[in-house]
Amino acid sequence: MADRVVLAYSGDLGTSVGVGWLRDTTGKDVVALAVDVGQGGEDLDAVRARALECGAVESVVVDARDEFADEYVVPALKANALSLRRSSLVAALSRPLVAKHLALTATQLGADTVAHGCSGTGDDPVRFEAAVAAIAPDLRCIAPVRDLALTPDSTVAYAAEHRLPVPGGERAYSVDQNLWGRAVETGFLEDPWSAPDEDLYACTQDPATAREPDEVTVTFERGVPVAIDGQRFSVLRVVQELNAVAGKHGVGRLDVVEDRLVGIKTRQIAEAPGATALIAAHEDLERLTLERDVIRYKRGVESEWADLVSDGLWFGSLKRSLDAFVDHTQQHVSGDVRLRLHGGLVTVTGRRSEQSLYDFDLASDGDDAFDHSLSKGFSELWSLPSRIAARRDRAN
Amino acid sequence: MADRVVLAYSGDLGTSVGVGWLRDTTGKDVVALAVDVGQGGEDLDAVRARALECGAVESVVVDARDEFADEYVVPALKANALSLRRSSLVAALSRPLVAKHLALTATQLGADTVAHGCSGTGDDPVRFEAAVAAIAPDLRCIAPVRDLALTPDSTVAYAAEHRLPVPGGERAYSVDQNLWGRAVETGFLEDPWSAPDEDLYACTQDPATAREPDEVTVTFERGVPVAIDGQRFSVLRVVQELNAVAGKHGVGRLDVVEDRLVGIKTRQIAEAPGATALIAAHEDLERLTLERDVIRYKRGVESEWADLVSDGLWFGSLKRSLDAFVDHTQQHVSGDVRLRLHGGLVTVTGRRSEQSLYDFDLASDGDDAFDHSLSKGFSELWSLPSRIAARRDRAN
Amino acid sequence: MADRVVLAYSGDLGTSVGVGWLRDTTGKDVVALAVDVGQGGEDLDAVRARALECGAVESVVVDARDEFADEYVVPALKANALSLRRSSLVAALSRPLVAKHLALTATQLGADTVAHGCSGTGDDPVRFEAAVAAIAPDLRCIAPVRDLALTPDSTVAYAAEHRLPVPGGERAYSVDQNLWGRAVETGFLEDPWSAPDEDLYACTQDPATAREPDEVTVTFERGVPVAIDGQRFSVLRVVQELNAVAGKHGVGRLDVVEDRLVGIKTRQIAEAPGATALIAAHEDLERLTLERDVIRYKRGVESEWADLVSDGLWFGSLKRSLDAFVDHTQQHVSGDVRLRLHGGLVTVTGRRSEQSLYDFDLASDGDDAFDHSLSKGFSELWSLPSRIAARRDRAN
Amino acid sequence: MADRVVLAYSGDLGTSVGVGWLRDTTGKDVVALAVDVGQGGEDLDAVRARALECGAVESVVVDARDEFADEYVVPALKANALSLRRSSLVAALSRPLVAKHLALTATQLGADTVAHGCSGTGDDPVRFEAAVAAIAPDLRCIAPVRDLALTPDSTVAYAAEHRLPVPGGERAYSVDQNLWGRAVETGFLEDPWSAPDEDLYACTQDPATAREPDEVTVTFERGVPVAIDGQRFSVLRVVQELNAVAGKHGVGRLDVVEDRLVGIKTRQIAEAPGATALIAAHEDLERLTLERDVIRYKRGVESEWADLVSDGLWFGSLKRSLDAFVDHTQQHVSGDVRLRLHGGLVTVTGRRSEQSLYDFDLASDGDDAFDHSLSKGFSELWSLPSRIAARRDRAN
Repeated sequence: MADRVVLAYSGDLGTSVGVGWLRDTTGKDVVALAVDVGQGGEDLDAVRARALECGAVESVVVDARDEFADEYVVPALKANALSLRRSSLVAALSRPLVAKHLALTATQLGADTVAHGCSGTGDDPVRFEAAVAAIAPDLRCIAPVRDLALTPDSTVAYAAEHRLPVPGGERAYSVDQNLWGRAVETGFLEDPWSAPDEDLYACTQDPATAREPDEVTVTFERGVPVAIDGQRFSVLRVVQELNAVAGKHGVGRLDVVEDRLVGIKTRQIAEAPGATALIAAHEDLERLTLERDVIRYKRGVESEWADLVSDGLWFGSLKRSLDAFVDHTQQHVSGDVRLRLHGGLVTVTGRRSEQSLYDFDLASDGDDAFDHSLSKGFSELWSLPSRIAARRDRAN
Repeated sequence: MADRVVLAYSGDLGTSVGVGWLRDTTGKDVVALAVDVGQGGEDLDAVRARALECGAVESVVVDARDEFADEYVVPALKANALSLRRSSLVAALSRPLVAKHLALTATQLGADTVAHGCSGTGDDPVRFEAAVAAIAPDLRCIAPVRDLALTPDSTVAYAAEHRLPVPGGERAYSVDQNLWGRAVETGFLEDPWSAPDEDLYACTQDPATAREPDEVTVTFERGVPVAIDGQRFSVLRVVQELNAVAGKHGVGRLDVVEDRLVGIKTRQIAEAPGATALIAAHEDLERLTLERDVIRYKRGVESEWADLVSDGLWFGSLKRSLDAFVDHTQQHVSGDVRLRLHGGLVTVTGRRSEQSLYDFDLASDGDDAFDHSLSKGFSELWSLPSRIAARRDRAN
Repeated sequence: MADRVVLAYSGDLGTSVGVGWLRDTTGKDVVALAVDVGQGGEDLDAVRARALECGAVESVVVDARDEFADEYVVPALKANALSLRRSSLVAALSRPLVAKHLALTATQLGADTVAHGCSGTGDDPVRFEAAVAAIAPDLRCIAPVRDLALTPDSTVAYAAEHRLPVPGGERAYSVDQNLWGRAVETGFLEDPWSAPDEDLYACTQDPATAREPDEVTVTFERGVPVAIDGQRFSVLRVVQELNAVAGKHGVGRLDVVEDRLVGIKTRQIAEAPGATALIAAHEDLERLTLERDVIRYKRGVESEWADLVSDGLWFGSLKRSLDAFVDHTQQHVSGDVRLRLHGGLVTVTGRRSEQSLYDFDLASDGDDAFDHSLSKGFSELWSLPSRIAARRDRAN
Repeated sequence: MADRVVLAYSGDLGTSVGVGWLRDTTGKDVVALAVDVGQGGEDLDAVRARALECGAVESVVVDARDEFADEYVVPALKANALSLRRSSLVAALSRPLVAKHLALTATQLGADTVAHGCSGTGDDPVRFEAAVAAIAPDLRCIAPVRDLALTPDSTVAYAAEHRLPVPGGERAYSVDQNLWGRAVETGFLEDPWSAPDEDLYACTQDPATAREPDEVTVTFERGVPVAIDGQRFSVLRVVQELNAVAGKHGVGRLDVVEDRLVGIKTRQIAEAPGATALIAAHEDLERLTLERDVIRYKRGVESEWADLVSDGLWFGSLKRSLDAFVDHTQQHVSGDVRLRLHGGLVTVTGRRSEQSLYDFDLASDGDDAFDHSLSKGFSELWSLPSRIAARRDRAN
């Protein structure tokens, strides 16, 4: 059984060619593993069948959509992880889950090797390999497209020569999609001065089209979205529902130049309608229920969390310790947020919570609940270091 | 001349009553100082005249709009200081400039006391007093509304009794406005579940109204916006132009619960159309021209910068040392950004720069400029700590 | 019973006078509460008796030494909280525990008011009051020395007039002591150019005296010190033992200018022999058992943790969420550290752990375990952003 | 002239063998470059002669000691860069300077390739190559020991076969030394439980030997050490003098487990007597002359600065922007610090400055300069968020 290699199989040209290539190069039987993280597109039964036609001895499809929603999307939401306009977090979020299923399958089958179809210019191979190293440190990890120097042309030639049932026309650009969003790069997009065409988008409609606004209320319990307009749903369903309604209004499009871990800049188009709406709602509810210094410090933690996940360190110790911090902050993040969706924009128009720290009486200008005279002492001592320094500066 | 007090005079009921109150309480002559930071509204000649009618011995109006644009807006833009959805930075940005002119005028007139009209529930008195302490540490600072316990009712009564020519109907809510934006609080807004009414807004039109999108190209030199659509303008004019066009599309509305320095939460409505458009453009250009680790670290600096300014420490040593960091990062932030304005949304649709770090050849997937095999060594060493830890964990 | 006030009673002149003053001013019965946090000095039975003689209706002594060790010292040690040369953390560590017992006792007795003996120039009143506010938000908190304007002279006069059995000669300097250390300020120390005299120290002997070095091995389990030289002890006992042996060698003296929260600088002499030895050992063991990025990030968390505790926010949400992070990092911090104590210096001379991440084979230069060729790919990609930027800079 | 390669030549076995190996492998003439950064040891004339005997066509020695002191040691001191017990900063500090001279010499000679003698297990090749990439992005960089797979045995065999005049007995451990310190690794040290032997140390004497203490006063101007005991010196001379006196007392020994950038832990012994004394003095003077929030924030900057330099990014944009921050903070760091050196310990016993922010009157307990009543307002508002949260928690 150690003569098996488990390949993360997407059904595309690269991994389809990879089946035979891996078998020929390693002399091992190839097991194809497709993981459903909500990528949509082709039917996964067809994908499973193609792997067998391409020479896999076994072909497995795992429905990991709820696992993805509960264990990957929820931590990302608690950490407000798209708020920094980072399309990289779309792809980065599904890689560790796929790597985990690769490692699990390899362990079950006694395989000592796993493989993925990423090339060497992106960050995804690093994310795959770092995740595998962190959960199955002795598994070998092969990247045929990178290590065996596959180019687009040689891949097509190989497929033709071996009469592989691969998908016909390759797209002009590279796409990565899952429940949390969809990212596109390559092609004419590579000139960052070119505006993206409308047909690059698949999850969001043109925000410029005239429509009536929609309003949606999302309920959170301890940072987890649990209901829409009062109806309780699984997290998976919440995201799907919001993808639909926010996507209809063109919410959540990103067009950014980003830095890859491997040292180069890339231009990315992404769309993440449900994610954008959920993070806007979650962040807003935090402002109502968390203390000021928690909000301030958590911003830095969120930034580090997003960097770590983007850099492939999902299973690393630091990321897990940051999760402990974030989870601790979420105990009061419960309540309702009302969102307005229109014209590409998501707007919070109201928030309420039994855990609210907003005190109507203290905030009210006309009220006597707040003792104005305390402000004087505070202001004096708050200014004291500046005053002392100013006296020193004047004397010198 | 030490028998004078210089009052920051806005022309509103509180500061109008303050003129007489200060004179009666301190026995000093009151000099009224109005500073034009682009607050719009009432004509400043009328404001100047009213101060005299209310009993000021002298009434001065300073046009500080260019100073505000060049020395306050520009550093805020370099620090992307509205990007964290902070309406507090609207008011916080003009306070140190007004405090500076208070101190200058006091020094010129030999006055030993200055005054402002803020109450004790907000952060503005702290910002005024910290700024005064940092630039004129021996000036005394009085806040009649706070220290003399003026309430809205007693203020109106005082005005009536003394037949002061104060503005008639007070608004139901409190407004602060300058070139960089406009912030509103109080009234029915105080329930954070209530959606804001359309008539709260003055600088932005309803984003839901159907309009044709506008496109604008902003040019930056070393982080400073210097031209729109190729036409060179002062920074003041750039912000004014963008306020107009972005405001027309309803861009830059904020509705947030924020934390005051004095320990309470408040609900704020703000609109900052030009600021929102400029920061979106500036941040995007930084992504093209700054190295990854600079972008990552600068995020933390920006967060600290915004906290310090919001907390009234504009003239503090730390804020000034952070400015030195930020300025150093801006030497390459030059180039053009094309913005699309529509439906309340500002979208960057293109960016270009002679200082670009984006390398078309390296980023291109099909190209050979990037040696894929290097990725393997990088990935292995990047994963090594996770692998060692995973082996340790498995052994224990 | 609401006619009672619970006073944190130390037995010194200020709190002794405070008993009567509180009774006379508030008209309530005064309950004196002395908390043993290892401050040493006077016998606590004598302290208890004195409170009664001064007019307290009840006088309680709580032995909280184990609680202090387990719930206050241990988190401080996990956060390496003295490593930044901060004497302020000595006093700051015991305040929340005393405040907690004040609040507990007040609740048990139905009292609605507590009191402490701190003056207004230091940070201790803020620490007391912030802690009380966080655990018993409706308790009123009185500070006779600060709020009733007691001065040293008026205090002595009051004691004489009322024939209070107060301690005779007040010391020339102010001392705060607990299990974790001892801090001294005031007097001739106030000139930061003056060197401290040897007789200021009580827990450490002169490090310049010739002695034979001592060697001690401390065992940690998940960040908690559990044994010395193989013999298991409570944390309280571990600290006591290390205070003795490290104190003998003059280890852990501090002489620093520190910043108070209330805006001024102060000069402090402190001694914390056991704390210094334990933190040196703990930090060293972390370097053996934690991953690099955890160590790097935890440095920032430690700094924030120490700031929060020094600023009186022990029971605040942020401090507790940081504890969740720190605790998560400690799961592997188990093992032995050998310390050498001599001449005022604590030196780690060895460390070992079954949780070690140190890999002898990889670290060894002559060995083949580490594939040198990987370093080339890593180095190339690590340098790539600098290289791209350098080309850009040269072109401009 | 493009047929030349410039080798960073130390005179040791590896680089001596490298001369011939580079010539044979690349077919280019080899120019040897030795840079004097205060490494001591062998006479540099002998080193220069050996390179020629080993086959170099040219052999250059550059005295860069003052440049190293002024442009590398001073920024490290301003950033307090050894304060985190990091021996890695010893070696990391000289690499960019050597790389700079390599690149300069290559440019002068028209060479297109440089080379260094580092193996692949350490961080030094990354530091060399990142520095070269940042200042001469098109220079090729070769590492014979790493890329050509030299092992200790094959190196010795090569030297014998070619009758090279290499140094006889190789040491059992690897040493790196410069003006700022000396670092040792390898050999029996590789067991982190073994205590280091006394004969590993070369710059510090046994701290356990009985001696009379020494006292030294260091004067700083804007963060730069300019005098000892009132006598003005160059920075180079200041460090040399302090190396002598602090070394005599065994000050500045480090024994730490550190993390390499390439992913593994290593055990290091280091000694940096002058650096340790200077940083203790500098950090102490900052506490007297900098505002609290500057000190707090600068700790994080220092940590990042040290990480960047340790990671080879001396010439990177972020490091240079951090220098701008640090330089701005140093404008008031002027004054005298008195140090006591004894028993391995450096103690600050006094500090004074015309830029001091310490205010004797405010700090004094008995004085009336500080208005105690202000403390009450400060304390109340400081505690307000905790109080509001506690009420919320109690209600839920």
